[in-house]
Amino acid sequence: MTSSPTPADSIDLLIEARWIIPVRPFGVTLENHAVAVSGGNIVAVLPQAEARERFTSRKTVHLGEQLLIPGLVNLHTHAAMSLLRGLADDLPLMTWLQEHIWPAEGRFVSREFVRDGTLLAAAEMLRGGITCFNDMYFFPREAAAAVQQMGMRAALGLVVLDFPNAYASGAEDYLEKGLAARDDLRDEPLLSFCLAPHAPYTVSDQTFERILPLAEQLDIPIHLHLHETTTEIEESLKQYGVRPLERLRRLGLVGPGLIAVHAVHLQAAEIALLATHGCSVAHCPASNLKLASGITPAAELLQAGVNVGIGTDGAASNNRLDLLAEMRLAALLAKGASGNAQALGAHQALQAATLAGARALGMEDKIGTIESGKAADLCAIDLSSPELSPCYDPASHAVYAAGREHVSHVWVAGQLRVENGSLCGIGKNDLISLAKVWQNKIRD
Amino acid sequence: MTSSPTPADSIDLLIEARWIIPVRPFGVTLENHAVAVSGGNIVAVLPQAEARERFTSRKTVHLGEQLLIPGLVNLHTHAAMSLLRGLADDLPLMTWLQEHIWPAEGRFVSREFVRDGTLLAAAEMLRGGITCFNDMYFFPREAAAAVQQMGMRAALGLVVLDFPNAYASGAEDYLEKGLAARDDLRDEPLLSFCLAPHAPYTVSDQTFERILPLAEQLDIPIHLHLHETTTEIEESLKQYGVRPLERLRRLGLVGPGLIAVHAVHLQAAEIALLATHGCSVAHCPASNLKLASGITPAAELLQAGVNVGIGTDGAASNNRLDLLAEMRLAALLAKGASGNAQALGAHQALQAATLAGARALGMEDKIGTIESGKAADLCAIDLSSPELSPCYDPASHAVYAAGREHVSHVWVAGQLRVENGSLCGIGKNDLISLAKVWQNKIRD
Repeated sequence: MTSSPTPADSIDLLIEARWIIPVRPFGVTLENHAVAVSGGNIVAVLPQAEARERFTSRKTVHLGEQLLIPGLVNLHTHAAMSLLRGLADDLPLMTWLQEHIWPAEGRFVSREFVRDGTLLAAAEMLRGGITCFNDMYFFPREAAAAVQQMGMRAALGLVVLDFPNAYASGAEDYLEKGLAARDDLRDEPLLSFCLAPHAPYTVSDQTFERILPLAEQLDIPIHLHLHETTTEIEESLKQYGVRPLERLRRLGLVGPGLIAVHAVHLQAAEIALLATHGCSVAHCPASNLKLASGITPAAELLQAGVNVGIGTDGAASNNRLDLLAEMRLAALLAKGASGNAQALGAHQALQAATLAGARALGMEDKIGTIESGKAADLCAIDLSSPELSPCYDPASHAVYAAGREHVSHVWVAGQLRVENGSLCGIGKNDLISLAKVWQNKIRD
Repeated sequence: MTSSPTPADSIDLLIEARWIIPVRPFGVTLENHAVAVSGGNIVAVLPQAEARERFTSRKTVHLGEQLLIPGLVNLHTHAAMSLLRGLADDLPLMTWLQEHIWPAEGRFVSREFVRDGTLLAAAEMLRGGITCFNDMYFFPREAAAAVQQMGMRAALGLVVLDFPNAYASGAEDYLEKGLAARDDLRDEPLLSFCLAPHAPYTVSDQTFERILPLAEQLDIPIHLHLHETTTEIEESLKQYGVRPLERLRRLGLVGPGLIAVHAVHLQAAEIALLATHGCSVAHCPASNLKLASGITPAAELLQAGVNVGIGTDGAASNNRLDLLAEMRLAALLAKGASGNAQALGAHQALQAATLAGARALGMEDKIGTIESGKAADLCAIDLSSPELSPCYDPASHAVYAAGREHVSHVWVAGQLRVENGSLCGIGKNDLISLAKVWQNKIRD
C-alpha cells in the first residue's frame, strides 16, 4: 500500500538563493535555502529541495551566486533633500544649515519639491536595497505619494519646529497638519508614522510637552536630532542649565519610543540612560564626519545594550542615500574609534542596518529579518563579480566589499521593485529629467 | 586677400567631456573642454570648439555628462592579496597577521598566486579608475606580467623582510631577487620600482643600512609601513629606545623618497619632521579603521605641508581596492577627526588621490594631472545617473556621491582600458574562474 502524496501548498513566490542571512537567528548564513512568500509575507525559510516538495509556487526566482538579506532600513533621512545634494559641502553644521540649507529651503521647499525630491530619493534608496526609510521632512502627504508610487515602505515624520516655513506657520500648525495627514493615511499598508520634533535647539519645552501625550496616545515613536554637536550641548547648558538629553528626560521623552538621531556626544551616564530606557540611536556616520560633528560611540552604545540602527541622513550632508556604504562605514568606524577590531562585526552591522531599524520604528514584528510571518521585504546582493571574488564569507562581503551596485533584486511586501539592478516602477530618464528641472531652478 | 587656413595638427585621440578637473591648476573645473592625445601623451587641454579647429584626430570620444579626472594613483596595496579577500575579518592587526594572513601566505604564496592575484586586483583597480598602483608583495616578475597584461601602470615594491618565505630566504636574497627583476624590467614603460622594506618591526638596522644606498643609487622611493599601531611603537621603544620614525631618521632614511604607509600615530614633532624632509604619507583610512589601528591625522599632515596620497592597502584588510571609496572616506574622516568641516575638501581629496600619489612615486612630471606633456592616464566618471542628480558641483559629486560603478572610461598612456564600464583586456568570467580556483584551494 502506498501513501498518497501530500498536496503541495500553493504560494505566490519562491526565491531560491545560494546564501541567505536571515539576521534572526543571529550570525547564521544558510546555504541553498529558499524563501516562500504568500500574500506579501514570508511563510517559510527552508532548504531548496524541501521547498520544491512542499510548495507549488506561481513564480520561482532562482538567484545564482547571490546573498539574500532582509530589506535595509534607513533609520534617518530627509528624503526630499536629494534635490539639494552637493549644493554646499565642506562646511560645519551651523554654517551649512544657516547660510546654505535653510535659505535654499526657504526659497524652494513646496509640495512639488517634496513630491519630486522624495521620489528621487526613494528611487535611489530602493535601487540600493533599502525597503523602508524613516523620514523627517515637510509636506508628509506629498512624501507619502512618492513612497506609494515607488512601492516602498516609509515611516513618515510628523515634523515640528517652533519657527514657520512654507509648510506650516508654527508648532501648533505643524502638529495639526501632520496629524491630519496621518489620520488620512493611517490605513496605508506601507506607511507608518513618527512624531518628529526637529531638535532640542528648534523645539521649545512647551512644544515637547504637547508632543509627548500625542506619541503615547498614537503609540508611535519620537524621532529627533539629539547631541549632534558640542554647540547644541553648550547652548542647552546656557539656556536650560542641562544637556539636551537630560532636558528630554525631565520632560518625560526618554523611553523606548525615542529615536535619538546622531547621539555623537555622550557621557557614560548618558549611554547608560539610553540603555536603561530602551531608547534607539540612529547612527549616521557619514553625515557626522562630513559636518565635522564627531564620531558616535557606536561600540560603546552596543556594548551597553542600546538599540543602534543606521541612517544615511539627507543627501545634502552625506551625499549618498546608500545604506550599504553607511553600514560599512559604521562597522569600520566603530573599530577605529574604539580601538577594538572586533567591534561591530559583519553580522552585527547587518543587524544594525535591518532589525535594529525595524525595532526603533516599532516594527520588529513586521520587518527586519527573514522569518516566517514577516513581510517579504528582501534584498539580493550579487556576489559573483570579480571585485567580490573569491568569497569565503558572504556576511563579510555584504558589509566590507559589496556596494549598492551589486544589489540585484529588491522586494517590498513580496512585490518585485528592483530586478537585475533596475527599478521596476520608474524609468531612469524620468528621474534624471525631474532632477534637471530642479537643478536649473535652484542653481539660478 | 584671404589667409590660407592653418593645417590642423594630426593627433591620435580627442576626448571631449562636459567637465574636466585637471587637478593642476588646483580647484579648477573646466566645462566643455577636450583633451588632445598623441603618442600616449596629452598634447593639449582646450575648449572643444578650439580643439576641433586645431586638431584632426584619428579617433574622437564624446563623453556626455561625464567628468574627466586624472587616473587615480593607489599609493599602497598588496595586489595579490585579492585572493585572501574576506578570509579573516574583525581582528586586530597582529592577530590578523600572525594567526591568519601569514599562515595562509605561508601555505599558498607562489608565482602562480602572485600572477593570478595581481591580475584580479589590477582588473578591479582599473575598472574603478585606478591607472597606477604602488605594490608591495613577493615575486615582482609575476606581478609585472599581470600589470602588463592589464595594460596599467605600477610601481613594484622590491620587498625586503628579515625572515624567509616561499619567495626568498632572507634579506640578502630578497634584495638580490628584487634588484634582478628590476634590472630586467627597467625599460618597461608602464613599470617603475620602489625599495620596499616591509616595516620597522620586520627589518633590522643592518638591512635598512643596505637599502639606503641602493635607493639613492637607483633614485627610487623607499616604501614601508610606519607607525601603523601603538604596539609597533612600543616594541620599537623597547628594542631600539626610540620610536620607529626616529630610528629611521638616525639611519638616514627620512627624506623626500620616503613613502610612510599608514602614519597613524604621530606626535606634532614627527609631523613636522615628515614635512621638513619632504616625505610622503600613504594614507589608508579603511584598513586603519578595520584593523582598529586608529585614524591618521590627515588634516594636520596636510596643514603641515606633508604630501599625503591615498592607498587602499590589500584586499585582505579593506576589503575593496576602490580608491574612489577611499578618497571619500579620507575626506570624511579628516573632517570628523579634526573637527574642521573644511579639512580635506573635495578638490584636495582629488589631488591626494592623483597628484600626491604621483609625487610620492617620483612621477610628478609624468602622471597625476591632466596637463600638456603628461601621460594620458585618464578616468571618466559618468555623473548622469539618478543617484548623482542633480549636480551642482562635479568635484563634490566625484568625492562625496559617486562610486566606482560610475567610472565609464579609463585610459592608460592613451590606450583605452575600460569602455562603458567594462574592461577591454579581459573577460569578467575569466577573472571569476581564476578566483574560484584559488577560493577552492584556500578554503579547503
